[in-house]
Amino acid sequence: MPYKIIKKEEFDKVRYHEGDWELRMRLYAEMCRYNTLVAVKKAGSGHLGSSFSSLDIVAYLYLNELNVLNVGWENDNRDIYFSSKGHDVPGLYSFLHSVGILPEEKLLKLRRLNGLDGHPEVRIPGIEASTGSLGMGISKGKGMAWAKKYKKCGGNVYVLTGDGEFQEGQIWESLQAAAHQRIDNLIAVMDHNKYQTDMLVSEVNNIEDVTEKVKAFGWHVIRINGHDFKELKRAFSEIKEVKDKPKMIIADTIKGRGVSFMEKPVTETVSGKTYYKWHSGAPDNDSYVKGLKELSDSIRKLAAALNIEIEIPENTPEEKVSFKSSKEFVTDAFGDALVELAKNNPAIIVLDGDLSADCKLRKFEYAYPERFIENGIAEQDMVSTAGGLARMGLIPVVNSFASFLAARANEQIYNNAGEKTKIIYVCHFAGIIPAGPGKSHQSIRDIALLGNLPNITIIQPCNAFETKKAVEYCINEANENCALRLVIGPSPRNIELPDNYQFRIGIGTELTEGDDAVIFAYGPVMLHEALTASEILKKSGFGLKVVNMPWLNKIDLDWIAAITDKYKKIYVLEDHSATGGLGDRILDALAAVHHFKGKLFEKIGLNDYPECGAPEEVLKYHELDGLSLAGRISGYRNLVEKRGENFYSSEAPQ
Amino acid sequence: MPYKIIKKEEFDKVRYHEGDWELRMRLYAEMCRYNTLVAVKKAGSGHLGSSFSSLDIVAYLYLNELNVLNVGWENDNRDIYFSSKGHDVPGLYSFLHSVGILPEEKLLKLRRLNGLDGHPEVRIPGIEASTGSLGMGISKGKGMAWAKKYKKCGGNVYVLTGDGEFQEGQIWESLQAAAHQRIDNLIAVMDHNKYQTDMLVSEVNNIEDVTEKVKAFGWHVIRINGHDFKELKRAFSEIKEVKDKPKMIIADTIKGRGVSFMEKPVTETVSGKTYYKWHSGAPDNDSYVKGLKELSDSIRKLAAALNIEIEIPENTPEEKVSFKSSKEFVTDAFGDALVELAKNNPAIIVLDGDLSADCKLRKFEYAYPERFIENGIAEQDMVSTAGGLARMGLIPVVNSFASFLAARANEQIYNNAGEKTKIIYVCHFAGIIPAGPGKSHQSIRDIALLGNLPNITIIQPCNAFETKKAVEYCINEANENCALRLVIGPSPRNIELPDNYQFRIGIGTELTEGDDAVIFAYGPVMLHEALTASEILKKSGFGLKVVNMPWLNKIDLDWIAAITDKYKKIYVLEDHSATGGLGDRILDALAAVHHFKGKLFEKIGLNDYPECGAPEEVLKYHELDGLSLAGRISGYRNLVEKRGENFYSSEAPQ
Repeated sequence: MPYKIIKKEEFDKVRYHEGDWELRMRLYAEMCRYNTLVAVKKAGSGHLGSSFSSLDIVAYLYLNELNVLNVGWENDNRDIYFSSKGHDVPGLYSFLHSVGILPEEKLLKLRRLNGLDGHPEVRIPGIEASTGSLGMGISKGKGMAWAKKYKKCGGNVYVLTGDGEFQEGQIWESLQAAAHQRIDNLIAVMDHNKYQTDMLVSEVNNIEDVTEKVKAFGWHVIRINGHDFKELKRAFSEIKEVKDKPKMIIADTIKGRGVSFMEKPVTETVSGKTYYKWHSGAPDNDSYVKGLKELSDSIRKLAAALNIEIEIPENTPEEKVSFKSSKEFVTDAFGDALVELAKNNPAIIVLDGDLSADCKLRKFEYAYPERFIENGIAEQDMVSTAGGLARMGLIPVVNSFASFLAARANEQIYNNAGEKTKIIYVCHFAGIIPAGPGKSHQSIRDIALLGNLPNITIIQPCNAFETKKAVEYCINEANENCALRLVIGPSPRNIELPDNYQFRIGIGTELTEGDDAVIFAYGPVMLHEALTASEILKKSGFGLKVVNMPWLNKIDLDWIAAITDKYKKIYVLEDHSATGGLGDRILDALAAVHHFKGKLFEKIGLNDYPECGAPEEVLKYHELDGLSLAGRISGYRNLVEKRGENFYSSEAPQ
Repeated sequence: MPYKIIKKEEFDKVRYHEGDWELRMRLYAEMCRYNTLVAVKKAGSGHLGSSFSSLDIVAYLYLNELNVLNVGWENDNRDIYFSSKGHDVPGLYSFLHSVGILPEEKLLKLRRLNGLDGHPEVRIPGIEASTGSLGMGISKGKGMAWAKKYKKCGGNVYVLTGDGEFQEGQIWESLQAAAHQRIDNLIAVMDHNKYQTDMLVSEVNNIEDVTEKVKAFGWHVIRINGHDFKELKRAFSEIKEVKDKPKMIIADTIKGRGVSFMEKPVTETVSGKTYYKWHSGAPDNDSYVKGLKELSDSIRKLAAALNIEIEIPENTPEEKVSFKSSKEFVTDAFGDALVELAKNNPAIIVLDGDLSADCKLRKFEYAYPERFIENGIAEQDMVSTAGGLARMGLIPVVNSFASFLAARANEQIYNNAGEKTKIIYVCHFAGIIPAGPGKSHQSIRDIALLGNLPNITIIQPCNAFETKKAVEYCINEANENCALRLVIGPSPRNIELPDNYQFRIGIGTELTEGDDAVIFAYGPVMLHEALTASEILKKSGFGLKVVNMPWLNKIDLDWIAAITDKYKKIYVLEDHSATGGLGDRILDALAAVHHFKGKLFEKIGLNDYPECGAPEEVLKYHELDGLSLAGRISGYRNLVEKRGENFYSSEAPQ
């Protein structure tokens, strides 16, 4: 196995050593960084920047402040620690491995099925709260701290936060209420590493002077250098004396701390702009080798000063095996279409919630800086701001990840929609894939969350061409709100549309012929699986017609009546929960055209939380991959057994 | 007509008078207060307290600062004013009447169909933004202000806010972003009247020192007496000089200003606690007469000082004609059940979002103060706090209005649910009735917003007895999250349950016999309409079976198969949007049991935004009243024509 980590025994040498405390702390944290880097590289993604900035704090807290390593996680009197931002969890996992809570094989299954979720998840030993969507942590910690007092339990609750998440309003709600309620067994620690995603917090949406702000909210605040263990010790001992109010330590840190080139932003050659590049994603092989080398050198130096011998494994990078995919990103097509349409339409205003690069908005940002509003991590404010723009006759295009936009700002979207203006909500990272970040990021509820607004059209395009058509429709033709659902990763294949393709409201496109069953699907990920199922079934003489249906809440009744007429079996494949998605609307339509006589209708989607893992393994786990679909639709058990496992053991196909 | 208001002509006398400016301002505002009181009394509900506290500011702004009365609402260079809290809209309507924007007959149709919505609504002349749910206004104003700059339009944007809504996180998001973006044509004015609903802001969740806080967020802040017109003038002229940052005037005001007994809280005889009683609701006849008298006296005195004669109409109160209803409130049964269950279950913790009285939590609050968390208007924080409590083994019962709880805190509910704890979300004010507050408050989306969480049971009980059963089920039996949907008003009738009634998951109760069609409904409001339809139809020999189905997302397949077997016509009546409610789940179940052969299936619910008005007129407007239902189900047009109007003119019954 090419990925090896520093073993627990090596950490024990440092933890139980009698030498200089500060040196031992520094060494311990560096060793955690080494393992974090290996784990993230193996996972192929993960957040190194904030794992590294927070690791000194994490190591300090567990080894010096928290009683939990002694009393255990089942003890009601334990000190509780969790991270509100959650992105830094690879670092936390590495620490939990170092003290024997997580075994080596788990750490090397970061972001994989049955491994460690991409964001904190309570089913994992040592994880106290599921987090990953920003701004909820202090509230949740407040609840735990309140419960400790009510239950007369000892222990404090320590919540690590990011700095960017102080743009989220919930943080300020929680600060105000915690102060009012005098929750003094709650300690927040800000990992103030200055960068959110790839830009400076101070440039995106400045939170300074955050010390003043938090003090004004009634908290006791100490600001320190978060990489100085003596300052950490002093600060935590000082706040223990403070009673009757909640406390926060603002720890100034360096994002990417420990690896020289990860500590600095990079200037892009094309744009000339400076960005921080190590927020998320695994390093390339070169950077990986260099990073390990720097950390190894640092470990050796500190170990030598302490006279400890630390065994550092040899690690050589291997080629990353990636999800089979095309080169197409529908998000690229979206970004390009926006730029194109904006040329002749000055009413188009683009709003972003700190995800400009992921949402492929940078081209627009560079082309039309005066029409680009970077609003930071404040989805509610962004959406209501868009409401104001729309009331002034502009066309706001609001961008964030689907799970944040549709849920966090749901009431604001309803409020705007009630004003009968037109706003385009672009729900990026829609659906189950990529599955590595885990269920805080995978969006399986957004269609349901937006679908019963009386005046919204929800569209998910299947490829770059249809994306362009969809953007044009939303901007130029739609006379109500639109939600555009976009897969964020590369399309598994280029979905080919027929020559006679037309983008007409309520009407989908037949992609394959087949007389035995029809399946409706949408978006590049699930259409790929549906097409794969169709291809598998064709070999067995079973004809499955695959229909691309990008209109998720508008169904043309004549069209659906005609297309389903001859089929005894009708399926809808969701990149979403089976409840509240396209299937519900197709079922409505079928009921309206009295089209049920003797037919089988099934919605195939998620009935549980989406699993974390590689795309293939997660789709297979949820029985949403082409082979599982083929088995389910045909009833041909042998198709499934071909792959040599009893996949349907818990539930036989109908 | 017993309700008469001061006419526009009288206001003109004051507005165009040459006498002392301050006296004229005071007089004008008092006259607006008079009309506000009449309008609210006629409406039977409305927010007097904050209408009165804000009216000096409103009158000052329109008559002195805003250019909109001169340039008109169509002018892009107009100054824009709107209220973020929106509760104060009766006062604003009165002002808009005084300057001829709203005719007298409209003002006297407050909270009625085709009248004036209970919260601001952009379709009404002079209303710039739909508001009513708290905390969105500064964000929306920021969008408008940004658009003004982008479009190179003149004019400022003035947003009035409450003080309680500074507990909402979105406020702080918007303050931070507006300062960062240097939006200097945005002016917020806080109507700091100290009370939120019926308690002091400082007791519920203190926002002080709010001046310090807002300053720390980078705004220019001036704090003044909001009833002193000279101070208002001075403050607004000072802030005009401030460039490059947004500005806020914190105006200390008195809730209920203008009527002596509305300016003071009242000590309850039973509890001995002090509450503010004039937040919402119409005054009784005595208070109405006394209030009018005080305002008339004040008007006469000020007019005399100016040598103006103001014609004040005579107003005598009439008996309020109210919605036919029983004495039953399911919320009472809920509150009582909670108190009862808490006796033997110390794990029950009740959380409230400043709606304790409306949600009937006061009994619990008094009985178990140590288990009651009043969290103020901060739904996201409340929900995540509940998440923390649940992780500590407690059973949080989270209360707010359905439209706020399910939408505003949606992502937090998802996050909690992912931790697989059990939390009970009590969605008060569920459904369409009462319709007076308007669409910010009526909840027609909550079932859809919660329904596709993988681990939630949604229940809406039909009467007090079933409510008790439902609460017991949620607390004692459910092993997943529960959402309890409760109608907030009195039950139109006592729904009688049969002797053999059982509360069993997934199974409803047959309330009537009938062979011609079956209708599933839930909750006291819609079951009353379904039963009324059944009674009407019975006279024509049409048998409609009414089934009470409190389990909104759990359907027992055997039960639904058996109960629908013999019917050719199946209806589901929603107290909700027709999309995403019980109907979708029943349709799912019918599809699963292949139960469609030759059957008609219809979901009857809202397909548009809910209208504002009296219960009967709104139900009739949406064709959800018993008579409309009877016509629709039977196809007997004559039933509908009986009531002497062509109700189905736009759409004939199927």
